[in-house]
Amino acid sequence: MEIKNTADGAAIAPAKDIKAFGTEAADAELALLNIRRRTPTPHDVEIEILYCGVCHSDLHTARNEWHATMYPCVPGHEIIGRVTKVGNHVNKFKTGDLVGVGCMVDSCRSCQYCEEGLEQYCETGMTGTYNSPDKFLAAHTFGGYAESIVVDENYVLRIPENLDPAATAPLLCAGITTYSPLRHWNVGPGKQVGIVGIGGLGHMGIKLAKAMGAHVVAFTTSDSKFAEAKRLGADEVVLSKDPAQMAAYRGKLHFILDAVSAEHDINAYLSLLRVDGSLALVGAPEQPLPVAAFSLIPGRKSFAGSMIGGIAETQEMLDFCGEHSITADIEMIDIQNINQAYERLLTSDVKYRFVIDMASLKK
Amino acid sequence: MEIKNTADGAAIAPAKDIKAFGTEAADAELALLNIRRRTPTPHDVEIEILYCGVCHSDLHTARNEWHATMYPCVPGHEIIGRVTKVGNHVNKFKTGDLVGVGCMVDSCRSCQYCEEGLEQYCETGMTGTYNSPDKFLAAHTFGGYAESIVVDENYVLRIPENLDPAATAPLLCAGITTYSPLRHWNVGPGKQVGIVGIGGLGHMGIKLAKAMGAHVVAFTTSDSKFAEAKRLGADEVVLSKDPAQMAAYRGKLHFILDAVSAEHDINAYLSLLRVDGSLALVGAPEQPLPVAAFSLIPGRKSFAGSMIGGIAETQEMLDFCGEHSITADIEMIDIQNINQAYERLLTSDVKYRFVIDMASLKK
Repeated sequence: MEIKNTADGAAIAPAKDIKAFGTEAADAELALLNIRRRTPTPHDVEIEILYCGVCHSDLHTARNEWHATMYPCVPGHEIIGRVTKVGNHVNKFKTGDLVGVGCMVDSCRSCQYCEEGLEQYCETGMTGTYNSPDKFLAAHTFGGYAESIVVDENYVLRIPENLDPAATAPLLCAGITTYSPLRHWNVGPGKQVGIVGIGGLGHMGIKLAKAMGAHVVAFTTSDSKFAEAKRLGADEVVLSKDPAQMAAYRGKLHFILDAVSAEHDINAYLSLLRVDGSLALVGAPEQPLPVAAFSLIPGRKSFAGSMIGGIAETQEMLDFCGEHSITADIEMIDIQNINQAYERLLTSDVKYRFVIDMASLKK
Repeated sequence: MEIKNTADGAAIAPAKDIKAFGTEAADAELALLNIRRRTPTPHDVEIEILYCGVCHSDLHTARNEWHATMYPCVPGHEIIGRVTKVGNHVNKFKTGDLVGVGCMVDSCRSCQYCEEGLEQYCETGMTGTYNSPDKFLAAHTFGGYAESIVVDENYVLRIPENLDPAATAPLLCAGITTYSPLRHWNVGPGKQVGIVGIGGLGHMGIKLAKAMGAHVVAFTTSDSKFAEAKRLGADEVVLSKDPAQMAAYRGKLHFILDAVSAEHDINAYLSLLRVDGSLALVGAPEQPLPVAAFSLIPGRKSFAGSMIGGIAETQEMLDFCGEHSITADIEMIDIQNINQAYERLLTSDVKYRFVIDMASLKK
């Protein structure tokens, strides 16, 4: 089988060929591909991938919806696996450890943001787990829809052994994406926190905000989700299309985590914030959101965004989830069903995250 | 002359009639009116008005552009005057003191925000200096385009005697509107701060940010303002319509104060912020501003707003201006020229604030 991730088919570093699932064009389905992984350097960890969560970003990238996809594309950045080999200088991990890899596998390590533990905002750009330039092989990075991955130990996370490893996979993206802003905006006891959208991100937001001690108000467009939101931990649930229900929360919330990727009225949610309250967007609607000046000025409110979290904070999140026995609600699939899963993602037909059982790749 | 601010022309509290300038309809010019001021209660200060700044809000309100104007309308909330009488229980001021009144003359004083010194965000709504319900007279409040005003001592400010009183008037709105967000977002030494728009608010923003010790970058749509911006204290000036000049500041600014009321591209300015940077709007464009999710998410940036400041902070600002000898750049007018001044406001034909010499009202 042709090797896809070197310019001329020849490795520029010691490497081995492995099986993966990916796509060679925006309009092609995902299918079996052979890709090349580097032989671990002295600082690398080689990981056999057990489970990989399916993030909506995977679909956006596979289909080139963000107009920057390099093909072939192997998505996947919610990776759980076992260490199979470590480089000579690796001291954080040993063979057999249960580990995770999230959205990034490297960054410059020397800019002010990397030094502050905000590698996700690295000045020169973090190296994404997939679809980023790969400094080891003359190609771009390939994600977790694969048999294995090789990652510098500084970008590998320890996974608490008390958690179900499959249901832990989504913590590496959905978990940290919601945990980081909840922490940054000081969510905790005494705080009224809104979570908008009950999907892959939002269901983690509810669980995490509740575990942090906040009073959690979930917002949904469907009253069929009321019982679900309560089960996930929401103290109250609001039907966002009912103006009377919304009005009851005007000026009441300290913080809102907005996990909706579809277009929606941000001003309606900004009106629910208290003075000095912030709304942080973690979903990314395609079109710009119209924000009225008078939604922000009378109340010194902020409309903000947040992107995953740094490596140390991701470890903190995993440890927090271990202590509080928090994992994602998942539906396990075989890799052969990934294209069908993508179609179901588009209709939000999943509670709440697909996770690929990577054993299926060996079939 | 008919008395305008009581329902039936009869006072419901001891009161006296004074001369003012105002308007009786959205499409009428401002002209001489008689209005009624209450006799000072034990907690009140009566002030002879010497100068009153002309804020764009005055024009918006006079012409009912915010659709909530009560007529007759007497604008003016940048008031400087001398105390002529004090109530029995007044202990902060005495006859002859140089004092100021800004955008508010009362608030509930018992909500959490009032207790925190954030009276401008009072839960039940602050009492505006004009166009708010008046709990003393059966009418609404009348502003500073008048001979005198009567205000509770807790909403009156001390004016540093070393400052030119006419040029101090705009500090009561334009000054505090820019000072408060600069302080709230920790502008000071080591910080790179952008000031967008060099008008009534922006020119104060430049002076104040510079005095706070920040490195100030002014943004203007006109290169004719470069020398002016430098004279006001800007360390650098950027022509905002030149993409190359803008690109040089990408990711460089800790904070941006946006004082532009016209429509403009917020995303272009958000791109200039560093990680965790905030842009605070103090101008209020009429139409909602389209904000791209990707302007906020990669960099955990905030798009915020801010409205004037609390009473204690307004006093702090005035004292700061006294220490640093900061006043507004003004053009003095007679009250008889107010309608012409409004027309010039619409074309930004003023450097940088009109101030009415209220002695002209005696003519």
